[in-house]
Amino acid sequence: MKLSNMLITTLREVPAEAELPSHKLMLRSGMMRKMASGIYNYMPLGLKTLKKVEDIVRDEMNKAGAQEFLASALIPAELWQESGRWGVFGPEMFRLNDRNERQFCLGPTHEEVFTDIARAVIKSYKQLPLNLYQIQTKYRDERRPRFGVMRSKEFTMKDAYSFDKDYEGLDVTYNKMYKAYTNIFERCGVDCSAVEADSGAMGGSGSAEFMVKSEYGEDEVVFCDCCNYAANMEKAPSTPQKAEEEEIKGLEKVETPDAKTIEELIKFFNITPEKFAKTLIYKADDKVVAVMVRGDREVNETKVTNAVGGAVEFELADEKTVKEATSAEIGFAGPIGIKVDFLLVDEEVANMYNFIVGANETGYHYTNVNYGRDFEGTVGDFRNVTSEDKCPKCGESLTIARGIEVGHIFKLGTKYSESMNAVFSDEDGKKKPLIMGCYGIGINRTMASIIEQHHDENGIVWPLSVAPYHVIVIPAVSKNEEQMKAAEDIYNSLKELGVEVLLDDRKERAGVKFKDADLIGIPMRVTVGRMISEGKVEFKLRSSDEVEEMELSCVIDRVKEEFEKNSIKL
Amino acid sequence: MKLSNMLITTLREVPAEAELPSHKLMLRSGMMRKMASGIYNYMPLGLKTLKKVEDIVRDEMNKAGAQEFLASALIPAELWQESGRWGVFGPEMFRLNDRNERQFCLGPTHEEVFTDIARAVIKSYKQLPLNLYQIQTKYRDERRPRFGVMRSKEFTMKDAYSFDKDYEGLDVTYNKMYKAYTNIFERCGVDCSAVEADSGAMGGSGSAEFMVKSEYGEDEVVFCDCCNYAANMEKAPSTPQKAEEEEIKGLEKVETPDAKTIEELIKFFNITPEKFAKTLIYKADDKVVAVMVRGDREVNETKVTNAVGGAVEFELADEKTVKEATSAEIGFAGPIGIKVDFLLVDEEVANMYNFIVGANETGYHYTNVNYGRDFEGTVGDFRNVTSEDKCPKCGESLTIARGIEVGHIFKLGTKYSESMNAVFSDEDGKKKPLIMGCYGIGINRTMASIIEQHHDENGIVWPLSVAPYHVIVIPAVSKNEEQMKAAEDIYNSLKELGVEVLLDDRKERAGVKFKDADLIGIPMRVTVGRMISEGKVEFKLRSSDEVEEMELSCVIDRVKEEFEKNSIKL
Repeated sequence: MKLSNMLITTLREVPAEAELPSHKLMLRSGMMRKMASGIYNYMPLGLKTLKKVEDIVRDEMNKAGAQEFLASALIPAELWQESGRWGVFGPEMFRLNDRNERQFCLGPTHEEVFTDIARAVIKSYKQLPLNLYQIQTKYRDERRPRFGVMRSKEFTMKDAYSFDKDYEGLDVTYNKMYKAYTNIFERCGVDCSAVEADSGAMGGSGSAEFMVKSEYGEDEVVFCDCCNYAANMEKAPSTPQKAEEEEIKGLEKVETPDAKTIEELIKFFNITPEKFAKTLIYKADDKVVAVMVRGDREVNETKVTNAVGGAVEFELADEKTVKEATSAEIGFAGPIGIKVDFLLVDEEVANMYNFIVGANETGYHYTNVNYGRDFEGTVGDFRNVTSEDKCPKCGESLTIARGIEVGHIFKLGTKYSESMNAVFSDEDGKKKPLIMGCYGIGINRTMASIIEQHHDENGIVWPLSVAPYHVIVIPAVSKNEEQMKAAEDIYNSLKELGVEVLLDDRKERAGVKFKDADLIGIPMRVTVGRMISEGKVEFKLRSSDEVEEMELSCVIDRVKEEFEKNSIKL
Repeated sequence: MKLSNMLITTLREVPAEAELPSHKLMLRSGMMRKMASGIYNYMPLGLKTLKKVEDIVRDEMNKAGAQEFLASALIPAELWQESGRWGVFGPEMFRLNDRNERQFCLGPTHEEVFTDIARAVIKSYKQLPLNLYQIQTKYRDERRPRFGVMRSKEFTMKDAYSFDKDYEGLDVTYNKMYKAYTNIFERCGVDCSAVEADSGAMGGSGSAEFMVKSEYGEDEVVFCDCCNYAANMEKAPSTPQKAEEEEIKGLEKVETPDAKTIEELIKFFNITPEKFAKTLIYKADDKVVAVMVRGDREVNETKVTNAVGGAVEFELADEKTVKEATSAEIGFAGPIGIKVDFLLVDEEVANMYNFIVGANETGYHYTNVNYGRDFEGTVGDFRNVTSEDKCPKCGESLTIARGIEVGHIFKLGTKYSESMNAVFSDEDGKKKPLIMGCYGIGINRTMASIIEQHHDENGIVWPLSVAPYHVIVIPAVSKNEEQMKAAEDIYNSLKELGVEVLLDDRKERAGVKFKDADLIGIPMRVTVGRMISEGKVEFKLRSSDEVEEMELSCVIDRVKEEFEKNSIKL
């Protein structure tokens, strides 16, 4: 493509709302434009890379034996009612009616649709295993769309749904997908970690998230400093902590009129937060759940939800519920005499001595509280891991970092096949529910993650595999006929080879051309300047500062070399 | 792909609602499945062909210098309010609110979006011409979705929007698109005619529809039997007809108590319909329009709408309006004394002698009416063409056939650039509105049209260019090791060449395999049977009955030959 014919939409100024490097660079380089909050239009450069990511995903999915489908984005409400999720999905789901007042949604995900397809076409175990995927537009009405395409309302997702006859088969499929995902991200140049993730109340080790480390990430990830262990915060188990042993003292009720928060209590008692146990009250659907963790810890809501057998809605209880459970104003909740359906006590709290809790009476706390003597509950791991915890695999120290989820693989089991009656006839002639897995990759998010990991102060540094164009040929002075002719020759020869190449034939200064080439991140730059009179040109990789001077006749081989180095076929 | 690994979803029985051959065959061959009325999911075979059609369209659009974009399907209402179309689009437009009650639609078309992009990025005439396109999902809440993907609610469209600095430029772009469309349909194997279409009240010759002849078509198309003239019914001009000359008689008012319809009047007066002129009353927005055509003719509503300067809503008037205009019950409308904003008289009526019209009085008609003497109005072409009319280009006879629109190219002019203030600085330094064109192709509809024109009683007969797979290799007896080995060798050799090939390794009878291969329409079939012991196999084209016996070693060349014949690169 000649740049003189191309619609160039690079921006000098980037909207203040863009914080993330990839968001800024996608706007500055003219890859996309904002249409509305969380809704973007892709310009030619952005679309080319988006399609390359799609093609890598498609190739690896096909190699892993998955078959490509394409479902509609409009999905009738009935399917979601069948699975029970119509009522579960909140305002994130875009809902609309057709002219006959039939209800639809714009699919935020497609488990129901593919379970529906499977139950219609799968009859026998002989057809299994099957892995069906699509690369398709998804819709989520995000409360806070942000970070450009990282969290947007309309986005492209590769979603796959696998069907096996038994759990052993699911394990095989799951592992194939794990490998395929590893290949995909490697080919895209994305350095990411497969992180153990929570798989809901059913437990098991059936879920992994592929996370890219980023200070802007919305998820917390726990990495071992030594082995390859990684887990997301929801899932990572805490290490049992034992407080220093003390002589057990007698329980005392203390008047604490103005001290309700941990900070106020620390001041009031002049003591460290490790001596407090806070009691938080949640609603899990219609059940009331009290959770106790040490004063300086965070409750892990996923662990709590799993401990009570799962919940569709889980949130901190409202004031009325708290008052009913504690018979007191907010700020005085404690385990002794509390009226709740579940009292969950973090293991660490059960191991503390002579600690302080709310007295379930306005203006009072208990001191010298001890588990077992003063109250009992369900003891378990209910808190978030901290850097004090240890790796559950090797016992070494942990680092907590933020991450962006680019992929997720998940063993669903029979959740959908049972609710939607998707069964097959097994070898023994019996009807059994299909054993399912689901596997997602955010295509736009992967593209943005590539930029997060491949940019410098001048712009994007595309890996060759996903670059919108491989090479940019720049005649330093477009008016110079010799330079222009040589540049066009290189351009045409590369094009003939199948290289995707740009020719910057604009009547701009060389400096402007270099700046733009750097911004849009084309991996290889061939500059035709004054030295062309001696038959020489300059070759430069975007990822390197080195300018290689070479004979005109060597350029093609130099370009081919890069393709070979990157294992990309021409 | 080996068929044993493929999800085969062919159907024995097709839902009764499927009338169109393409609809039946797409369901029977398992290319797609219905999700809801007018909403389909594509299975692997269907998706492969859909993508091939997309790729042909993409290739020709790129060759014509257009640049690919990708806009969101969710479009904020504000853009449509700006262009004035938010209120114009009726229930066909899917509308929805986000969680903040902001209004959106699912784009039925994207003029507004691309005009918005253009006004943001186009500053100067130096950037022109520009032609931006996308291949994207569109949404229309059809009142009567039918014929499978021919008229569906969610579909893929290639839509392009061009921006020129003047009308000469637009002509050049338009002609390029005309040529690109011709190439696209030719490469897809679709025999279609570019048909002159109406371009609205502004007139001009700026619109062509690409129509496929089909008895199931929803549009009427007028074809010249001699030259290459073709126009859709809305646009085709009628030939001025002159009634046989008669002596003009005196006007008479006749009591016709029970005769209101043309049929009743024919009976009552015992005379042919050519002696009547019927007067139909319409509402064009807030104007009342009476239109007179001969008793046996049909009013052409497009011609009428254009004659009154265009209208957002145009429909037959309600009873109340008719009664106010005629001071009579329905059935007695006529030109004499009628109270309307426009009285349009078809040229043919103005040339009739002593005809009969309603008297604008309940129970009465006038006879011996003559234009000029008894009434006057705007004379013009307001009726549909019939087979009595002549070709406006060469004067030969016409044929009226039904057609399916697969593409449409349209000179928009400044309709959107003016309402949305999309201007550029011209060479003279003045700001001028961009001159626009728009160009659409229904991708799914094109695919279905290919099937309409390429099928027989056994199934689809795909042209090589769009076939989901090029070759199917069938070992007659899968259990026979020699046959299976030879089949696998051919399969692997073809795959290596880049041929898309299926291997039917299922443990089915040869007859079943042949039937399925015919149904899904794979262009070339290689059968490995008993003759393999003599080193021979059978080669057969899906489009021919001839079975070619050949040496195993010749198969690859025979396949290559077909690619060459079809000018398709391997």
